[in-house]
Amino acid sequence: MIIGVPKEICPGEQRVALTPANVSALLKKQGVEIIVERGAGDIAGYTDSAFESAGAKLVDRDTVFSTAQVVLQVQTPGSNTNNGEEDLEKMKEGQVLIGMTDPLANPQFAQTLAGKKVSGLALELVPRITRAQAMDVLSSMAMIAGYKCVLLAANESQRMFPMNMTAAGTLNASRVFVMGAGVAGLQACATAKRLGAVVEAYDVRPAAREQILSVGAKPVELDLDTGEAEGSGGYAKAQGEDFLKRQRELMTEVIKEMDVVITTAAVPGAKSPILVTEDMVKAMKPGSIVVDLAAERGGNCELTEEGKTVVKHGVTIIGPVNVPSTVAFHASQMFGKNMENLLNLLLDDNGDLQLDFEDQIVADTVISHDGDVPQARLRELLGLP
Amino acid sequence: MIIGVPKEICPGEQRVALTPANVSALLKKQGVEIIVERGAGDIAGYTDSAFESAGAKLVDRDTVFSTAQVVLQVQTPGSNTNNGEEDLEKMKEGQVLIGMTDPLANPQFAQTLAGKKVSGLALELVPRITRAQAMDVLSSMAMIAGYKCVLLAANESQRMFPMNMTAAGTLNASRVFVMGAGVAGLQACATAKRLGAVVEAYDVRPAAREQILSVGAKPVELDLDTGEAEGSGGYAKAQGEDFLKRQRELMTEVIKEMDVVITTAAVPGAKSPILVTEDMVKAMKPGSIVVDLAAERGGNCELTEEGKTVVKHGVTIIGPVNVPSTVAFHASQMFGKNMENLLNLLLDDNGDLQLDFEDQIVADTVISHDGDVPQARLRELLGLP
Repeated sequence: MIIGVPKEICPGEQRVALTPANVSALLKKQGVEIIVERGAGDIAGYTDSAFESAGAKLVDRDTVFSTAQVVLQVQTPGSNTNNGEEDLEKMKEGQVLIGMTDPLANPQFAQTLAGKKVSGLALELVPRITRAQAMDVLSSMAMIAGYKCVLLAANESQRMFPMNMTAAGTLNASRVFVMGAGVAGLQACATAKRLGAVVEAYDVRPAAREQILSVGAKPVELDLDTGEAEGSGGYAKAQGEDFLKRQRELMTEVIKEMDVVITTAAVPGAKSPILVTEDMVKAMKPGSIVVDLAAERGGNCELTEEGKTVVKHGVTIIGPVNVPSTVAFHASQMFGKNMENLLNLLLDDNGDLQLDFEDQIVADTVISHDGDVPQARLRELLGLP
Repeated sequence: MIIGVPKEICPGEQRVALTPANVSALLKKQGVEIIVERGAGDIAGYTDSAFESAGAKLVDRDTVFSTAQVVLQVQTPGSNTNNGEEDLEKMKEGQVLIGMTDPLANPQFAQTLAGKKVSGLALELVPRITRAQAMDVLSSMAMIAGYKCVLLAANESQRMFPMNMTAAGTLNASRVFVMGAGVAGLQACATAKRLGAVVEAYDVRPAAREQILSVGAKPVELDLDTGEAEGSGGYAKAQGEDFLKRQRELMTEVIKEMDVVITTAAVPGAKSPILVTEDMVKAMKPGSIVVDLAAERGGNCELTEEGKTVVKHGVTIIGPVNVPSTVAFHASQMFGKNMENLLNLLLDDNGDLQLDFEDQIVADTVISHDGDVPQARLRELLGLP
């Protein structure tokens, strides 16, 4: 079994799908060979010589695609709609492609792969079950995004985060408000707290309260009926418009006291809900900051512009894209480990890849196989019987 | 006595010389009036209406210069060599100008002011004595710079700062090395520590050891004779070339283990010493970061480019300028408080400004008065008897 790792070509993508440590670990399996495109880990801080020392063979890009039976990417042509097409042309019948494919927003990609008789595994569909936690790239990357978004805010802010008592008077700590207390939100709370800010957080799921407290932040309570807020897989459920309207009214009062607002409310496969309206931005203090981690899915703030930092009504609104990629060394380390763990499940004792559809992880993750789309949710999205 | 605050015009300067809180405090003095140029505090987050509520009169720029007896600036034409000339033309005989003048690098400015019979006070020359601590802008601004430079590093780094144990393995904490443990260096240590990094620091002054330990960092000891390293005012003394060469050799071994190096070694009025050579950068890990807080004075790193972020030998070297200005709200708060404290010393019971040259603070700080340059150190630099 030859596993191939090409260099990422999606603009702005700095990660690499496997690190030298993962190469060493996977090569312990009988029958496994690993080829890596030269320079694949350069930006992330993993040198060619480190890959070579780990036992990988360095090759050119075409050799990866023509030789590898399994191709590993961070951004497959499914999520890389910029220039992924050129990779897709290189793929051939019988190959296996594992990486992020943006399956719920781009279900057509599953059909495209099926049409080429390429087997595709979408890492975003790894189920949120205990056994699969170590393969869950959404969680590991959300952790990185939650950390980094606080740095983006602090870096842009005209205020220091920690309280300081100096000879020139006392500087108040910044007040940071985190909306959405999933993995990213909780990591944002912890990081802002660490930097010395006063941190509050809100989530529609009542279960989030304990988690917010556990990272040292204060849960903000709104007078809302939130009984049914948690959907499957621990994600927040989409809410009705009445609920969201009342939520926005109460939220305005909270937000206008804040120096920094971080929004992390993403609903998988759907446009992100608007949590911060233009009126709320107008109510904020001049010089305040909004970081919108949902910028790629339309944004949680009405004024967010994807990939840009804009100033509106005196408030700086940051709409970053692909945040994990900006912490490429550690993001690749986690992504690679997720990938290694998944491969350990899929590879048999001879180093051959076996797809056991009785296994929930396989059943949920495989988006194309044998010329078909087996995954139930994707079939529904695609209108397939 | 009319005190005037113009908007800063130096490119990139976001601070304002007085905040509304300082206006309120100063107006308690008999006979004091304060005029502020419209929009002077906008970027820093101090609105015109806040200045007005505090009792300031909002005016246009020409009115500030034509009416005020005392003009307060962050960057006077002495330090603002970009476009300060246009302010200088507005100043007239008998006026007093207080602000940063870059006196040791630009002593000629004292003569220019003397020629115009303008009295100038350089805030950089406030002595490092206990009584003047509350007026010391170099310290207050260094505190801000020390905080912010860590954010610049963390924001640029491909690694997270804190250690993280996750389902996808353990991420090691970043190793941060701070060179120079003055106010900026110690604040950098504290901030990096706060963010979760493993922090070490070095200073030629033996007294720095205790201070480094007090902010939770580990002092790095080199086998060097450092007995005479502390000069006057608590600044590091300039060292001979032999000493620096040996220091560099030992330092290379330390630096190559680090993920982030922050240099803060400035010697007042002199070009900054080179602490990080090109060879040392070559020895660093790919993806490492250098933040050179001495970039404005030639830099502590041989490869620093002032005002730029460059990648050399795989290492990202950040050479920021005017770092305190990027945290303009809190920087202005401290700067304004320093200014207020100095004015409290200078204003008599009738609100008139008195320069008592018997007072060390006045004697050290006044760079021009009555058509002359009274300050001893400047006279020496200017070759005056």
